Parts: sequence; structure tokens; C-alpha cells
Amino acid sequence: MTTSAVTTVFSTTADILNAWLGHRRLTRRVIEAFPEKELYEFNIGGMRSFADMVKELIDISGPGVKGLATQEWPDGSNFSHVAKEVAPTKSDLLALFDQGTEQISTYLPQIPEEYMQETVMAFGAYEGQVYSTILYLIDNEIHHRAQGTVYLRALGIEPPAFWNRD
Amino acid sequence: MTTSAVTTVFSTTADILNAWLGHRRLTRRVIEAFPEKELYEFNIGGMRSFADMVKELIDISGPGVKGLATQEWPDGSNFSHVAKEVAPTKSDLLALFDQGTEQISTYLPQIPEEYMQETVMAFGAYEGQVYSTILYLIDNEIHHRAQGTVYLRALGIEPPAFWNRD
Repeated sequence: MTTSAVTTVFSTTADILNAWLGHRRLTRRVIEAFPEKELYEFNIGGMRSFADMVKELIDISGPGVKGLATQEWPDGSNFSHVAKEVAPTKSDLLALFDQGTEQISTYLPQIPEEYMQETVMAFGAYEGQVYSTILYLIDNEIHHRAQGTVYLRALGIEPPAFWNRD
Repeated sequence: MTTSAVTTVFSTTADILNAWLGHRRLTRRVIEAFPEKELYEFNIGGMRSFADMVKELIDISGPGVKGLATQEWPDGSNFSHVAKEVAPTKSDLLALFDQGTEQISTYLPQIPEEYMQETVMAFGAYEGQVYSTILYLIDNEIHHRAQGTVYLRALGIEPPAFWNRD
């Protein structure tokens, strides 16, 4: 075969949005699988609670995609993990997570093709190409969700199946 | 903005290969961070050892990409997790992992653009579009590596930084 990987189209934005929304559905199920108390209090090896990891996802996923699409970034004063007093219940956390999913669905399709390879400073601080920054946000969600699945196993709870994205 | 996400090019194969190779470097560091004994024996909540997770990655990543590029899949008899007697040391495991990285580098660029959206049966068993199957292989690596980082924390070892892909 003589294709050149440099020009071969791997996927469209619709493909990536579709894949990400599958991950969001799975992440939501992992949040739901935690008992209320353990969601906020359980940890292994001094790591954060899964609620705090989800707050990080909430802080950077939706606002990150919105920023890439609009060049409007949250104030520095807002770019810290969601305060502990925000989303004190699983129900609140799921509602904020769902808002993030809506932002992703709204703004990801607005990023024009010619912008994907541009280098930007996400949140005014993290330099990278636009497509690469989006992949980072998805990877970061997979990473922390997987850590949550170990918490669930340690709690004697079977995590939702990784392969199921419905 | 009026772009259509369905036709917007998100990334090329070279972009995805580059991102994946960054993940391979990070995964390699996570393997290296384990003490020899704990790599094979430690687990949380009845899960597999990290060595067994890495053996899964070895079984499906390189051979998966090769299969997508060549339509040659391992015999069914070979599609089971690498036998325990294979890669009995961290050094052996790293060598097999590196072979997988080489397969990815060799075969991913050989997949033609017009094939990316085709539906295939990976390993004769898993139906999905070619690009989606590749994303699954990458996601699966991020997922199990993240589980390994919780094992490391539980062992009192600081995992390699998630953001560093050099």
C-alpha cells in the first residue's frame, strides 16, 4: 500500500464526537455505580476521591471544548477544581457532568477544520494543537474513569463494562 | 461557524500514530515503575495483575493493527491472553511490548483512507469500523494503564506523570 499517513484522513469530527459521547455514557454509569458516601470519601493510596476526579473532568472538558471553539476561556480565578461545596451530592455531580456533555455536543462541531492543526494555549496555559488538546481531554476522562473502576472493585462493586458505550 | 462535523477532518493517521506512540512511551514507563514481584502478583479487589493487563495489550494492540492493515488475524488458538509462561520477567514483558509498538508503527500507516470507515470483524469476532477499532485499542491501553497507576499508588510509588508523553 502506498498511502501517506500524513495526508490520510483518520476520522471526522463527527466520528470523534460520537466516540466521546460513548465515553460520556460510560463515565456517567461509573459515577452512578458509586455509593453516595464512597463517591466523596473513598480513595486508594492517598489519591483523590472519584468525585474530585469527576470535578476535574467537569472543569476542563466542556469549558475546554467551548474555549477551543470560541476562544473564550474561563477566568483564571475560575480555573481551579470545582470547590468542594459545589456538587455535594451524586445527583448534583451528575447534573454538572451532563451540562458538560451538552457543551461538548454543542461546541465540538463548531471547530472548523482549518483550525484543528493550529497551536493554541488552552485555558491560557496549556500549549498544544487543537485536535491534540481534544484528544487529551478524552484521554484524561478515560484515565480517571479507569481509576474509579479500581475504587469500585476495591469496594466490592463490579464496574460497568468498558466495551459498552451505548 | 457553519462547518459540518460530518465532513470536518479531525485528524490524520499520522496525528493518531503520533498520539498513540506518546501513550506507548508513557505505558512503558508505568510498566518500568513496578517492582518485579508486584508487577506479576499485586492486585486490588480481585483484579488481574498489571502484568496480565499488559499481556492483553500486547495480544491485541500490535496484532490488531496488523490485522486491520493486512486482513491477517492471529489463529483463534492464539487469541487468548499470553500464557503465563510467556514474559515471566519485566524485561521480557517490555521486549514484547516494544515489539507491539513496532507493529503499530509499521502497520497503522498502511491502512488506506478509504478503508477507515469500513466495518470489519477484528480478530474475527469484534465488529466495528476500522477507525473506531483503532480508537478502542488506544482507549483500552489508557484504561488499563490508569488501573496500573492506582496499583502503584497503593504500593506507595508515584506513577509517571500522565501529561508527559515524551
